[in-house]
Amino acid sequence: MGNPVKKIAILGSTGSIGQQTLDIIRTFPQRFEIIGLTAGQNTELLNKQIEEFKPKFYWHGGKDAKTDIAGSEKLSPEELAGHPTVDLVVIAASGKAGLAPTLAAVKAGKTVALANKESLVAAGEIITTEAKKHGVRILPIDSEHSAIWQCLRGENQPPARIILTASGGPFRHYSKTELEAVTPQQALKHPSWKMGRKVTIDSATLMNKGLEIIEARWLFDTPFDRIDVVVHPQSIIHSMVEFPDGSTKAQLSHPDMRLPIQYALSYPERWPNQNVTKMNWDKTKELTFEAPDMESFPCLKLAVEAGKRGGTYPAVLCAADETAVELFLSGQIKFTDIACLVEQLLFEHQSLFRPSLDEIAAADAWAREKTMELAAGAYRC
Amino acid sequence: MGNPVKKIAILGSTGSIGQQTLDIIRTFPQRFEIIGLTAGQNTELLNKQIEEFKPKFYWHGGKDAKTDIAGSEKLSPEELAGHPTVDLVVIAASGKAGLAPTLAAVKAGKTVALANKESLVAAGEIITTEAKKHGVRILPIDSEHSAIWQCLRGENQPPARIILTASGGPFRHYSKTELEAVTPQQALKHPSWKMGRKVTIDSATLMNKGLEIIEARWLFDTPFDRIDVVVHPQSIIHSMVEFPDGSTKAQLSHPDMRLPIQYALSYPERWPNQNVTKMNWDKTKELTFEAPDMESFPCLKLAVEAGKRGGTYPAVLCAADETAVELFLSGQIKFTDIACLVEQLLFEHQSLFRPSLDEIAAADAWAREKTMELAAGAYRC
Repeated sequence: MGNPVKKIAILGSTGSIGQQTLDIIRTFPQRFEIIGLTAGQNTELLNKQIEEFKPKFYWHGGKDAKTDIAGSEKLSPEELAGHPTVDLVVIAASGKAGLAPTLAAVKAGKTVALANKESLVAAGEIITTEAKKHGVRILPIDSEHSAIWQCLRGENQPPARIILTASGGPFRHYSKTELEAVTPQQALKHPSWKMGRKVTIDSATLMNKGLEIIEARWLFDTPFDRIDVVVHPQSIIHSMVEFPDGSTKAQLSHPDMRLPIQYALSYPERWPNQNVTKMNWDKTKELTFEAPDMESFPCLKLAVEAGKRGGTYPAVLCAADETAVELFLSGQIKFTDIACLVEQLLFEHQSLFRPSLDEIAAADAWAREKTMELAAGAYRC
Repeated sequence: MGNPVKKIAILGSTGSIGQQTLDIIRTFPQRFEIIGLTAGQNTELLNKQIEEFKPKFYWHGGKDAKTDIAGSEKLSPEELAGHPTVDLVVIAASGKAGLAPTLAAVKAGKTVALANKESLVAAGEIITTEAKKHGVRILPIDSEHSAIWQCLRGENQPPARIILTASGGPFRHYSKTELEAVTPQQALKHPSWKMGRKVTIDSATLMNKGLEIIEARWLFDTPFDRIDVVVHPQSIIHSMVEFPDGSTKAQLSHPDMRLPIQYALSYPERWPNQNVTKMNWDKTKELTFEAPDMESFPCLKLAVEAGKRGGTYPAVLCAADETAVELFLSGQIKFTDIACLVEQLLFEHQSLFRPSLDEIAAADAWAREKTMELAAGAYRC
């Protein structure tokens, strides 16, 4: 009989999600064929991956030291995402880089496994409209959205309420003064998840949860006032859905990104994976919950406000945040300046109604430049 | 357009589940038509229900003071369960009384909403075989099994593991000596659920959880070694299912039997019900878990052992327990004697392989008589 082989392109294969996606594919080699891999700057790891998986196509954004990789052809991420030989496109790149290939994949009718938050945040309406038009499924890879998707499985009514869980990050219960002194080293240590640098900092500011609210709004066609956040430091419940009858479903596991990645790759099947640690209820003593601290972590509020206002505000939110996180990681601004800069950018921005992709790109470029300008000059927080 | 009206018979309408079922039907009067109601001894309440819902048929096991109820005809529970005008049979009677009507409903091809544990425990193989033969769905009304059923909704693989949650009852952490002194009044006060007397005592001994394990084995065709119990005193997570990929789903709500009852009645839809309190995650501070205490609560172990051995052991377990609970409630034996008597009965019983219904009835009768005999005489615990 045999199972159909899924032909996969991974965009951003050298990042945290990309590497873990390849880990799943290593575990189930008969199920997949890697058609293409793309990376940003990490050409050394990409070359190793190309040697191991022998994709037809590759791409990277680094200097082209090695122009000729035996048997592999260089192809742009957008072309790869829409290539006729590809069934499933994994968008593992973080930040702005995810948007164009996501749209290319959707327009070409490919199933998209999406780990990139920013594309849906900045252009959620465009992407979901195109997806509907082309009959394309966008499968979330984020643990929270995978949880919601799993809870909605088989249900025939929209959620009454989505409850996104948040670990609260490493600085839960910190005072404003303590937060001002936070270093990049401290912020890069997440208490429960091993993730890339950008998303780890976003988790520490709670911007990550804010972006996830906007993502959930588009993925599950649910209005903002039906999406709540609850802090759950153990990161065992990955999110919940409340149904119209008052029943709630939750999806749980040890924090391990391989689980949501595998679920998106294996869907609608679920495959046994020995490498994933199962829950042990004799050792799990408690799951706790608390309300998020909106005062100390203003990014969450800013994201919801940008999401509700719509237009080009979410794109500005993303671009300002991405720029500010870079500035924080390179020691140029304080941890608390991230929220401060994002807020100023949103304040100064003049949004457009139902922006085109070009207008979103222009808002993005404006926000990056303006963030740098503010950070370099005198800004008040 | 209009929604189809479900024509319902409620067997055991004056008990806790029966009354709550009528409460749901009162909330959604256009959705249901009550064809028949039956009760045991509580003819006063039954008469009130007949006046309110005007069923075609009724039955009760009390003295027939009122032989002629205007417009309603007396009909035996079995005949009612299989009556051509009935779509859905709610088996709300507890104990032995549920078995015959459950089988009658199944053989007549009716959808069965089952709150009665004992019928599946004593005759699970017969009932599920008949249900398969007649293409009948057995919809669980128990909160735990409803939770499992909801978690399995839309999944196309059998569970890797079922995790039944238990409140632990009112005597969690009691010593053996403390348990010996427990009075019926104490045992009838359950910390989280409002239920009938029999199931409340079974919850206090953990026999209830043992019966639920056997029930789950039949309802979800899952072997005993894949069914675990975890004590969760808040009774918010009603049970969980672990899937082959290591992902777990849980169903949660405030402890309110109206939710699983309504789910079985409205399935596959979910109807908004203002009377059901929704979860408030700002007020839910923690969910805790611990292993069940098998030493102080031997009924759990006895039930699993009886279930695994099969034959007529589960019928003897049920009958001995039902008799012992009655003896405890009437002050004739101690709380800890319930487990002791059940154990002795299982020890003395000679089981049959794949028993017929008559053989199950004979084992039941033997167990009841023997339990009374042991309780009246000298027995050692």
